[in-house]
Amino acid sequence: MNQLCRDFGIEYPVFAFSHCRDVVAAVSRGGGMGVLGVVAMSPEEIDIELTWLEEHCGGAPFGVDVVMPAKTVDREQGLGDSASVIEDLTALIPPGHREFAERLMEKHGVPRSDGSEPYRFGHGHGAPGLTAAYGKAQLEAVFTHRNTFLVSALGAPPKEVIDRAHAEGARVGAMVGKPEHALKSLGDGVDVYICQSYEAAAHTGEIGSMVLVPDVVDVVGDVPVLAAGGIGSGRQMAAAMALGAQGVWTGSIWLTTRESSTDPRVVQHMLTMKSTDTVRSRSQTGKPNRQIRTAWTEAWDGPESPGNLPMPLQQILYSEYTDRARRAGKYELVGGPVGQVVSRMNKVRSAGDVLLEIIEEYVATMERMSETYRSLG
Amino acid sequence: MNQLCRDFGIEYPVFAFSHCRDVVAAVSRGGGMGVLGVVAMSPEEIDIELTWLEEHCGGAPFGVDVVMPAKTVDREQGLGDSASVIEDLTALIPPGHREFAERLMEKHGVPRSDGSEPYRFGHGHGAPGLTAAYGKAQLEAVFTHRNTFLVSALGAPPKEVIDRAHAEGARVGAMVGKPEHALKSLGDGVDVYICQSYEAAAHTGEIGSMVLVPDVVDVVGDVPVLAAGGIGSGRQMAAAMALGAQGVWTGSIWLTTRESSTDPRVVQHMLTMKSTDTVRSRSQTGKPNRQIRTAWTEAWDGPESPGNLPMPLQQILYSEYTDRARRAGKYELVGGPVGQVVSRMNKVRSAGDVLLEIIEEYVATMERMSETYRSLG
Repeated sequence: MNQLCRDFGIEYPVFAFSHCRDVVAAVSRGGGMGVLGVVAMSPEEIDIELTWLEEHCGGAPFGVDVVMPAKTVDREQGLGDSASVIEDLTALIPPGHREFAERLMEKHGVPRSDGSEPYRFGHGHGAPGLTAAYGKAQLEAVFTHRNTFLVSALGAPPKEVIDRAHAEGARVGAMVGKPEHALKSLGDGVDVYICQSYEAAAHTGEIGSMVLVPDVVDVVGDVPVLAAGGIGSGRQMAAAMALGAQGVWTGSIWLTTRESSTDPRVVQHMLTMKSTDTVRSRSQTGKPNRQIRTAWTEAWDGPESPGNLPMPLQQILYSEYTDRARRAGKYELVGGPVGQVVSRMNKVRSAGDVLLEIIEEYVATMERMSETYRSLG
Repeated sequence: MNQLCRDFGIEYPVFAFSHCRDVVAAVSRGGGMGVLGVVAMSPEEIDIELTWLEEHCGGAPFGVDVVMPAKTVDREQGLGDSASVIEDLTALIPPGHREFAERLMEKHGVPRSDGSEPYRFGHGHGAPGLTAAYGKAQLEAVFTHRNTFLVSALGAPPKEVIDRAHAEGARVGAMVGKPEHALKSLGDGVDVYICQSYEAAAHTGEIGSMVLVPDVVDVVGDVPVLAAGGIGSGRQMAAAMALGAQGVWTGSIWLTTRESSTDPRVVQHMLTMKSTDTVRSRSQTGKPNRQIRTAWTEAWDGPESPGNLPMPLQQILYSEYTDRARRAGKYELVGGPVGQVVSRMNKVRSAGDVLLEIIEEYVATMERMSETYRSLG
C-alpha cells in the first residue's frame, strides 16, 4: 500500500473507469477504485446509479467521472441551458454532413428512418454531457451524493468545481494529455493527475505513456500521478510505477468483462481485435478519440469526408446514425472507444478476476525485476 | 547483468543507435552497446568507420545498423544495381512534386540552384541505403569486417542474410513495429527483436511501447526483446524491463550529446523542443518516420500537398531540397528524425554521462519500486 492507497482508502492503486455500475462495484469491492463514467446519463439516471453504488460497494469508495469540455459549440454560440439546446444544436448540423451520413447508411444497407421513431439525442441517448448545459446538470446530480473522487475527463475542472468538491470532502482528478495541461491547473488544487496517453481509449493526445508519464511527474511536484493508456496487465502496471506513477487508471480492459454492459456483438469483435484495429479519430465526438476502426471512422476520416464537426455536433450526428446502423444489424458501422490494449482482451472474465490477475502479474513482475536488478548490481 | 548482457558481452543492457562513431565508441566503452547506423554511408565510408571503431572501442563490442527495405521503387521497377540507378530513380520524380518543392523553397526565400553545384544523391548524400542496390553494397562492406551485432532497421532481414551473419559469429537484430512483424520471421533465427514503438524516432508503427513491448514478448517465446521508443532515462529503462524487455534500444537521446555530429543549429532546437514538436510523417523517406515538425513536413502533409512519393523517391527529393535550405540558412525547413523523448533532451552532455545517468536512475528506480512493492505486500 503506497501513499495514494492510504489517501484514497483502497488496497491496490488500480483505478477502473467504466460506464457500468457492476464493473465499478466489483473493482471497488475487490480493493481497487471503481469510477463511474456518467457522460451519457441524465441527472435522474446519475442519482439512481450512485444510490445503487452506495448500496453495493460494501462501504468501499468509488469515483465519478464527468466531462467538462472547455470549448463546445453551445457555449460558444451562447445557447445557454434552455430546454431546446439539443434541438438548437441539431439544427446547426450542415445539410452536407447529414447527406454524407445518409449516403454512408445507404451504402451499407441501413434503411432510411421512416420518422416513426425519431432519434432524440439527449439524456439516455448519445453523450449529452458533451454539451455545456447538460454537463452542468450532471454535475449537480453528482453533487447531491457524497463524493469520494470526482474526475474531469477533459483537462482540469474549473477552480470553483475543485473547491466545491473539496468542501464536500472529495478528491479531484484531472486527465491530462501533455505536461502543459497539468502546468495550466497547477495550484488550483487538483489532487491527482491522470496521464492519458496516446495508447488510451477515448479522448487522447499524441504522447505515448513512456514519455508522457515521467514528463508529467516531473512538472507536478508532490501531486500524485496515475498512468492511463495501454494498461491492462501487471507488467503494464509495474511499468507505470517505474515511470513514476503512484497508480494506474484502466478502462478498456473492463469492456469485455462479464459485468460490462458493452453490446455483445462489439465484445465479440474486441476479443479478436489487434491494437492497429483501433484508430484515433474525430469522427465520434469532434475531438481525437481512440476507438474501434469502423466503416464510420474510415468514411469520416477519408478523402471524401466533409470534415468532422466540432464538439458536440459530431457526437449528435454519430449517435443518431450509428444507433440506426446498430438497429439494422450493420455492425461494420458500430464501434466505440477502446484503447490499444484491446490486443490483450482475448476472453470474457469477471471484473474481480481481471483485477486479481493484474495484481498477481504485478507481484510476479516485481519479483522478476528484483532478481534481474540484484544480478546487475 | 542479465542473460542478454552475458550473450552480448556487455555490462549494461543499453543499446545506443547513432550515426556518429564517437557516440558508438563512448557507449561501448562505457559498458553498453553502441550501434552505428550506416544507411547514409558509402561502402568506403563504412570501411573507414568500422576500422576506426575496431581501434577505438577498447575491445568492447559494437553493432551495425543497416536498412533493408523489402519494397523500394528501384526493386519494383527492376532497375537493378546499375551505376545509373540514382539517376534512373531521380528521373521518376513527377514534375509536379518537384514544382511543389520549388515553390516551398521560394516561399521561404531559399535561392534557386544556379546549377554550379548540382545535388548528387548517393554515397555521402541523403540515405542511399534506402535503394536496394546501394543497400546491398553497404551490406557487403559491413561483412568485410568482423561482426558482433547486425541490425535491420525495417523488419527482419532475409533468411540468407541472417545465416551469413551467424556464420560470421554475429547476432542479428530485427526492428518490429507490431507483433505480426515478429511472427513473420519467427524461426528464421533472429537473435533479438527490437520493438520500435510509436514514440520512437525515425520509422515507426502506431503502437505505443506500453502495449507493443509485452505483446511482442508474448509471441516471440525465448527470443529476447529490446524496447525502443521514448527511452532516455533510468525510469524509462525500468519500465521497459517491467514490460518484459531484456534491454533498451535508445537513439534520440544521443543526438544532443557532445560527441554527436548533429548540426549545431538542430541541436539548439532539440534542446527546447516538446514531444508534440515531433511528427510522424512520410515526407522524409516515403514511410512514416518520426521527426522534427518543420515547414517541410507541414507542407507535404498539408492540404495542398501532391502526396508523398514511395521510398526512395521522397528521400531523394527531401535530401536535395532540405540540403539547399540548410545551405541557405533556412532552418525552418531543416529537421531530421527525433523521438518524443526529445522533451527530456535539455542540455548537452557527454555520451558517457548520459549512459551513467540512465544507469544511476535505473538503480534508484528499482530501489524505490522495491520499497513500494514490499509495502504493498
